[in-house]
Amino acid sequence: MQIYTAPLDDIRFLLEAFDYTGKIHGIPAFAEFDIDMAMDLLGGMATFCTEVLQPLNKSADAEGVTYNPEDHSVTTPKGFKEAYAEYVENGFTTLPYPPEHGGLGAPVVLNTLGSEVLIAANKSFSMLPGLSAGLIDALEGYTVHSEEFGNDNLLPKLISGEWAGTMALTEPQCGTDLGLLTTKAEPFGDHFKLSGTKVWITFGEQDMTENIVHLVLARLPDAPEGIKGISTFIVPKFLADGTRNPVFCGGVDHKMGIHASPTCVLNFEEAEGWLVGKPNQGMRPMFTMMNVARLNVGIEGVALGEAAYQAALTFAKDRRQSRSLNPAKRDANAAADNILVHPDVRRMLLEAKSTNEGLRGLVAWIAMCYDLSHHALDEDEKQKASDLVALLTPIIKSFGSERGFLNISTAMQVMGGAGFTTDWPVEQYLRDERIAMIYEGTNHIQALDLVGRKLPMHGGRLMRVFAGEITALLREASAHEALAPYVAALKVESKRLNDTTMTMGGAAMQDNEVIGAVSSNYLNQFALVTLAYVWLKQLTHVMALDEDDAMRRNKIQTARYFFELILPEAEMYANKVAVGKTPMTDIDVDLL
Amino acid sequence: MQIYTAPLDDIRFLLEAFDYTGKIHGIPAFAEFDIDMAMDLLGGMATFCTEVLQPLNKSADAEGVTYNPEDHSVTTPKGFKEAYAEYVENGFTTLPYPPEHGGLGAPVVLNTLGSEVLIAANKSFSMLPGLSAGLIDALEGYTVHSEEFGNDNLLPKLISGEWAGTMALTEPQCGTDLGLLTTKAEPFGDHFKLSGTKVWITFGEQDMTENIVHLVLARLPDAPEGIKGISTFIVPKFLADGTRNPVFCGGVDHKMGIHASPTCVLNFEEAEGWLVGKPNQGMRPMFTMMNVARLNVGIEGVALGEAAYQAALTFAKDRRQSRSLNPAKRDANAAADNILVHPDVRRMLLEAKSTNEGLRGLVAWIAMCYDLSHHALDEDEKQKASDLVALLTPIIKSFGSERGFLNISTAMQVMGGAGFTTDWPVEQYLRDERIAMIYEGTNHIQALDLVGRKLPMHGGRLMRVFAGEITALLREASAHEALAPYVAALKVESKRLNDTTMTMGGAAMQDNEVIGAVSSNYLNQFALVTLAYVWLKQLTHVMALDEDDAMRRNKIQTARYFFELILPEAEMYANKVAVGKTPMTDIDVDLL
Repeated sequence: MQIYTAPLDDIRFLLEAFDYTGKIHGIPAFAEFDIDMAMDLLGGMATFCTEVLQPLNKSADAEGVTYNPEDHSVTTPKGFKEAYAEYVENGFTTLPYPPEHGGLGAPVVLNTLGSEVLIAANKSFSMLPGLSAGLIDALEGYTVHSEEFGNDNLLPKLISGEWAGTMALTEPQCGTDLGLLTTKAEPFGDHFKLSGTKVWITFGEQDMTENIVHLVLARLPDAPEGIKGISTFIVPKFLADGTRNPVFCGGVDHKMGIHASPTCVLNFEEAEGWLVGKPNQGMRPMFTMMNVARLNVGIEGVALGEAAYQAALTFAKDRRQSRSLNPAKRDANAAADNILVHPDVRRMLLEAKSTNEGLRGLVAWIAMCYDLSHHALDEDEKQKASDLVALLTPIIKSFGSERGFLNISTAMQVMGGAGFTTDWPVEQYLRDERIAMIYEGTNHIQALDLVGRKLPMHGGRLMRVFAGEITALLREASAHEALAPYVAALKVESKRLNDTTMTMGGAAMQDNEVIGAVSSNYLNQFALVTLAYVWLKQLTHVMALDEDDAMRRNKIQTARYFFELILPEAEMYANKVAVGKTPMTDIDVDLL
Repeated sequence: MQIYTAPLDDIRFLLEAFDYTGKIHGIPAFAEFDIDMAMDLLGGMATFCTEVLQPLNKSADAEGVTYNPEDHSVTTPKGFKEAYAEYVENGFTTLPYPPEHGGLGAPVVLNTLGSEVLIAANKSFSMLPGLSAGLIDALEGYTVHSEEFGNDNLLPKLISGEWAGTMALTEPQCGTDLGLLTTKAEPFGDHFKLSGTKVWITFGEQDMTENIVHLVLARLPDAPEGIKGISTFIVPKFLADGTRNPVFCGGVDHKMGIHASPTCVLNFEEAEGWLVGKPNQGMRPMFTMMNVARLNVGIEGVALGEAAYQAALTFAKDRRQSRSLNPAKRDANAAADNILVHPDVRRMLLEAKSTNEGLRGLVAWIAMCYDLSHHALDEDEKQKASDLVALLTPIIKSFGSERGFLNISTAMQVMGGAGFTTDWPVEQYLRDERIAMIYEGTNHIQALDLVGRKLPMHGGRLMRVFAGEITALLREASAHEALAPYVAALKVESKRLNDTTMTMGGAAMQDNEVIGAVSSNYLNQFALVTLAYVWLKQLTHVMALDEDDAMRRNKIQTARYFFELILPEAEMYANKVAVGKTPMTDIDVDLL
């Protein structure tokens, strides 16, 4: 049953709430992308995704991908190749890239919000353009030292979607810890030959594009050990003269979800590759692609959380079961009441809706900050935007994937047994979403990034910028009497977050291990405060609307649920952080 | 990769902690089942389950069940039929039943703890004997009005496992709300002919037993509307003369998990059936089978949570990745440290271990109470035990299934991408477990049962009995200075639970709808306090052991994690309950 429709109204609302017109449209490079144009673009993408990609979602999941050992090829599910050709033809891969390489030049925020719709329609499919986007980001900042595969040759092919890209980082012995990698790059004329094995390579092999360009981490012969001896290379599947480069798929993984997205073992057998950027500084291009990639992983949770919520709501609207506990609400004309009358069904729906819309708002805001960090006319604004992107990206990735998974499970609960069957798409969403907590840096890696890197960065400047945003919003919101309880709640919780941060920081200065012990809980506390900020931002924006405006009433009742029934979790996480490290560190692991 | 081993040491420990010898073995009917005999029995079952059933778990999941429309038959996965024959031959189906019908006469607690091992080895398989057990429970208390299929004919066949039973309750239009059911039973000589459609019937059709006996809810011609017009019937697949009774499988559901357990649509086409118990009182036998069935659903979470935890621990022991944040803990002989050195990995493992062992203790306790409620020599003890079973069964079902699911997900997180692949069993556990929150009464139905039925029952007596248990334990535990922090924490949280209960009760007296709005959060608060009780019980028991005894140290470090990092969640749930109903009830559902 296909029931997902793109949440375009909410997307438009959020763009306006975070002042798209003033901030993004105000940038000369984006002059043609006013809000109407932006929504036209997203509307067109939404139509394509729901009409072409969504119908393939279930069949592709059931069919999966096939690895053919005789020629190391991978066959993607029926319809994928044709759908991708249409996707390319529509120019959807070109959205956020500069016109000089064939891009449409649209703000990244539109691409990011468009991704939600793409993922909701077909997550497995979305991973092909998603991975290419990461490679493009890396190539936009770093030079490929190659005539045949230089940036000016690669970028137009990748941006147009004719070719696809991959990220080949992980090896069997190293996932989180890339310092352990052993793939070797030996000089070969003006370039290199790479040998080694990479695992978990999404769309590492496929039959949808005429060439595949792998971004590969490897070590030069004289490289120092660990993370400081890693260089980045591009390794194309086919060389300029059309010969097959010896990088072969050695098999695909069998997984709980994203069945239609091939997860490949790649064997590099002296495959020709070209250096990207400087020798032994290979982590830099990787981190470049990571920022946007991690934003996108957070959106996966929003996308599938939204789609699951819509399925649950559709089911609930149709289902009658039991009587309201409030006699006045009973439907005398039927043997049972619609289940939407039951407070617990509403609780579950609001649980998903309130966190999901909060996360979408956060993504919209931070994606706009990403655009500002590159294009804002004012240097100060640029800096601030860049700080917010750095600070909040790990939260989007981690909290987005965790809540997304929980929200899908909650939506399934609304539907009872029906949600557990393949008659509805929710069970697939649950399977497809679970990996998001793991890939692109596990959620704990995000927490370490937040606490160990982002908090201390520039003497704590990132956190001060965020605190400044909160202060400004509290001031603005205080003008509206109706918002008083929300202003008060955000004040309490941002104060508590500040206290937690200070106490944790002090403890970590004495003992680094504290960070490892408390950061996952800290990230969740931080995320809840961030969502409270996003909700208050939305509430402030709806104050300008008529009191009976549907969007205003919708946002107020959803925000109320968030503030009263979700935000209290922040205190619990604070309490957990306050416990410190000893229950984890002062144990005998042999007793586990 | 098969790595599960039955947690027999912990099971023995828990039986002792809850005074199996004094309480259960002290009952004359169980005289031969001393603790050694009990553990021999469980050990034998564990060997069978891990050696015969566990190896079938993955292949059966991949193969699933096949519905054959031409003869309405269902083919179960390869090996199931043979394994079931062996299971029956070993007498495992006979464990908890009275010898007069061929049962072994063992205490229910042993069967219940044995179920954990069976489910961990192969959840889909476990559902066949599991459903039969429910039918046996119903038949032990109610008379079947039939010559051919009377209790004395049915019980030996079902207890021996030659025949299997099902529970045929749900219909397309009624799941939670059985009052809506429409299956009809028309008089036919001394018995009835049943017509209607039942859905979600686990093992409703299969090829593993020579006959299947369906326990069916239906309406007599003159029956009142709603729940008061429901009668219970047994409908065998084959009649006494061997002719096929027209109850046909119309298809099987395709599901996220438990692929090897057929979930059937059953069409009753004037199928012959016999009344169980009294006309229009059909809900009673159903509730009888529900109690044990709900206990068993809670155990599913413990079973798969344990198996997933073991897989994660096995993975973690082998995996090296990154360096300890504490330089003193770094392994100079390797390029990376074992991941067990990282506090967050320990956090995840302890999260699963501490809640899972708490739940196992709760199940052991309440299953012993179940035995006592039937067999205790003292009427007062019988009553108390019965009260505890009634009060805490919904908590076991609901919290066990919810935490079980989360614990499996947490175990997967420890394993990174590996846990998401079918190379390890964890992804199957996650898929298999999810349905436990839904079936046998959704978790919210459990919460309504707790708050709406169990709390007010007998003027609040059940809660007073539980409070009495806590008071007695606090007194006993206070004798040990080392337990002071845990005594204090349980005091605080049981006081808080009492306050929440009083406030909620007061609000509910004014307005019934409050129960619907707050009961799910209330159940979780209650569950955490209950687990704190179970943990303090265990701690009190280990005080008698040497200080360097491994079980003592294990229990202390695990309990510490529970009290410091899990129990704080109780306050959060209390805060949510205190919010009341309005964020759910005072909304416009059209805006959802």
